[in-house]
Amino acid sequence: MSTAALRKDARCIFDAALQAVDPAAAIRRHVVRIGNRLKVGGRGYNLDRFENVYVVGAGKAGSVMAGAMESLLGDRLTGGMVNVKYGHSTPLRRVEAVEAGHPIPDAAGVAGTEQIVELLATLGEDDLVFCLLSGGGSALLPLPAEGVTLEEKQAVTELLLQCGATINETNTVRKHISRVKGGQLARLASPARLVSLVLSDVIGDPLDIIASGPTVPDESTFADCRGIFNKYGLHDRLPATVTRHLEAGLKGTVPETPGPGDPVFGRTQTVMVANNRQALDSARTEAERRGYNPLVLSSSIDGETREVARVYAAMAREIEEYGDPVRRPACVISGGETTVTLKGGGKGGRNQEFVLATVAGIEGLERTVVFSAGTDGTDGPTDAAGAVADGYTLARAAEMGLDADDCMGRSDAYHFFKPLGDLVMTGPTHTNVMDLRLLLVG
Amino acid sequence: MSTAALRKDARCIFDAALQAVDPAAAIRRHVVRIGNRLKVGGRGYNLDRFENVYVVGAGKAGSVMAGAMESLLGDRLTGGMVNVKYGHSTPLRRVEAVEAGHPIPDAAGVAGTEQIVELLATLGEDDLVFCLLSGGGSALLPLPAEGVTLEEKQAVTELLLQCGATINETNTVRKHISRVKGGQLARLASPARLVSLVLSDVIGDPLDIIASGPTVPDESTFADCRGIFNKYGLHDRLPATVTRHLEAGLKGTVPETPGPGDPVFGRTQTVMVANNRQALDSARTEAERRGYNPLVLSSSIDGETREVARVYAAMAREIEEYGDPVRRPACVISGGETTVTLKGGGKGGRNQEFVLATVAGIEGLERTVVFSAGTDGTDGPTDAAGAVADGYTLARAAEMGLDADDCMGRSDAYHFFKPLGDLVMTGPTHTNVMDLRLLLVG
Repeated sequence: MSTAALRKDARCIFDAALQAVDPAAAIRRHVVRIGNRLKVGGRGYNLDRFENVYVVGAGKAGSVMAGAMESLLGDRLTGGMVNVKYGHSTPLRRVEAVEAGHPIPDAAGVAGTEQIVELLATLGEDDLVFCLLSGGGSALLPLPAEGVTLEEKQAVTELLLQCGATINETNTVRKHISRVKGGQLARLASPARLVSLVLSDVIGDPLDIIASGPTVPDESTFADCRGIFNKYGLHDRLPATVTRHLEAGLKGTVPETPGPGDPVFGRTQTVMVANNRQALDSARTEAERRGYNPLVLSSSIDGETREVARVYAAMAREIEEYGDPVRRPACVISGGETTVTLKGGGKGGRNQEFVLATVAGIEGLERTVVFSAGTDGTDGPTDAAGAVADGYTLARAAEMGLDADDCMGRSDAYHFFKPLGDLVMTGPTHTNVMDLRLLLVG
Repeated sequence: MSTAALRKDARCIFDAALQAVDPAAAIRRHVVRIGNRLKVGGRGYNLDRFENVYVVGAGKAGSVMAGAMESLLGDRLTGGMVNVKYGHSTPLRRVEAVEAGHPIPDAAGVAGTEQIVELLATLGEDDLVFCLLSGGGSALLPLPAEGVTLEEKQAVTELLLQCGATINETNTVRKHISRVKGGQLARLASPARLVSLVLSDVIGDPLDIIASGPTVPDESTFADCRGIFNKYGLHDRLPATVTRHLEAGLKGTVPETPGPGDPVFGRTQTVMVANNRQALDSARTEAERRGYNPLVLSSSIDGETREVARVYAAMAREIEEYGDPVRRPACVISGGETTVTLKGGGKGGRNQEFVLATVAGIEGLERTVVFSAGTDGTDGPTDAAGAVADGYTLARAAEMGLDADDCMGRSDAYHFFKPLGDLVMTGPTHTNVMDLRLLLVG
């Protein structure tokens, strides 16, 4: 099999995976309407029983998800509002899409969230509200606690990251200086019925982490926050407004985030409509259809990108020589999201770096292709979704005067693959279930 | 399946792998004697046609390999000499085992190598000599070029490593300031027939790298050495004796290392008698026999230990939740040799660190066991071969006041596993085909 054919197959397998996690398709799989009855993840809702039906939400996929709900609900949809990243709104009829800052939240995001909260405040127990959550939903649904500014909230997050707080600790604090995160949106929606439809962009699909879990129970407390500030000696460095809010919380004059036993969750339902695993399953099916022996490694690959790449190169060599872990024609599939320790002022993303880091290890292997791309169509601060390489890439690059080691050393994968024509370009996909990595040995 | 049963299975699978790469067993598989005929890797040798039969060699397994040859050759063996690591000699009848320094070569190694060279000088074309090579063979077969001291040779290696020379560049120079490496031992053995039996401790089994390839062609030249010294600006910093030797080599007054076309290799044969892949195959068979679905990932896993461990934890979670990459009861097997970036003054080895780095990622997974150990029975500067852990290890450690993160941060895996009783102890195995990693999900 030629590397050109393998490259084409890799792209088609990736595209098939994207289709499976298209937010509209994902919603249609989980929300089915028959007449005036909605079936949502096994539970039934009789639309005739509800006075109003609303859609709210936040995330990169928000607009496309809202469009799917508009199609499903038709004129039964009263209205709604979703916050999306700049440039990510799509035409909607009844729901308003508010464009806002991501990954750094901004005033537009706060204004949008305030409007959502105002809308929720008008709801009664005969109303039904869908909350659409996807990657980026945390930054796109910013609403600091009463009296705290967005800048002060960001400063606290920054402080925590600087002093080495864990991501769990940081999230605990963020939920407690927010008015919506950590289940508080569910409380605001009460007494209406609330159905959350979630597109997961986090390894392991933890509902309390995705978009900071605005509609699911939160187990952390104000006392935990105090413990965290004590642990890192931050009490004296906090903005006065945050200290006041924390004290109010500890005294009980500001309510706790709702925990697992909170009655508000008696009227909520949460359905994961798409995640990385579905993308992998679809990639597997497409790989099989194209004659490959597929092997799904894991949907939760994390770790340092360049080191994970070495494991891939080791598998490529083993397939070539011994037919393990899977016999040729082989397609090894994995997902998740790796990290990149930046090494210089170059341009790239974790997917491009992953592929670049395999190039030396697969050098000279005939009929071997490595492909990696982000399902959101964006890899780092670049216009590419990822990159593709084969056993001849290193030689081809050398002919063009491109040095793989040098580009790795400066985290400059983009300028390695661009001249080669080996960037994967998709444009915005309006979905986000992390990354997909493919190793094909034909 | 209980974790106790899984742990027992892991150890049995490891032991089965060790048996497959036992140097004596490996030699018996590749060298068969019927009457006075020897069949070596498909080629026949009539012992009646040879006047003398000798055994030489170097490496950690040298003594056990020599013992196997003594058993096979009986009184047809004239004699010989092998260099082994201190404490690694075993009783021999006709071959002398010389104990010497490893990983830092010493005068004992030089003296042993000189005696081997003197022995080879006496051989004629009616003689047959077996050269037994295994891990550590490079340090244990030290013989600097004429006029260069061992200290000077080591100083040059040190210089190259300090200035960031690649391992290939370092090897090129080392072969050219040695009297035996890079095929030169084959020239010294000429005109006798030379059969090399090799136990591989290097990823990819490159014959020119294992023990610095004393009996196989070398493609590098004195001109390459000059290029390397120029590249790193080292000419002025070399010992005068090394500069003189290099100049003599460039002028042709000192011979080049023998290249691929050299007639000396018309009278040589090289057989790989055991490698990591054989250990993995045997582990697979034993895992299958015990009812597991085995998956061999790769025999050439390298990269940073803690990051490779994350990939393992990701697979463990995926097997548990989705039955990928292999269905339960699952046994994922891999080999090779990872690297460790030391983070503190702790004690450990790459196998212990690997297992420690999976402990958080597999926490709470029932029926999951991770096992990693060096096939030589030694992991770093410890008395352990490796370690084993399961989904309850983190909790059990916490009860005992052991902090996994803290131990990782100080590269102190040994003191995490020792109080838990979870070190893998084998004693010296007298073989060395790198490491074996097992993930069992019952």
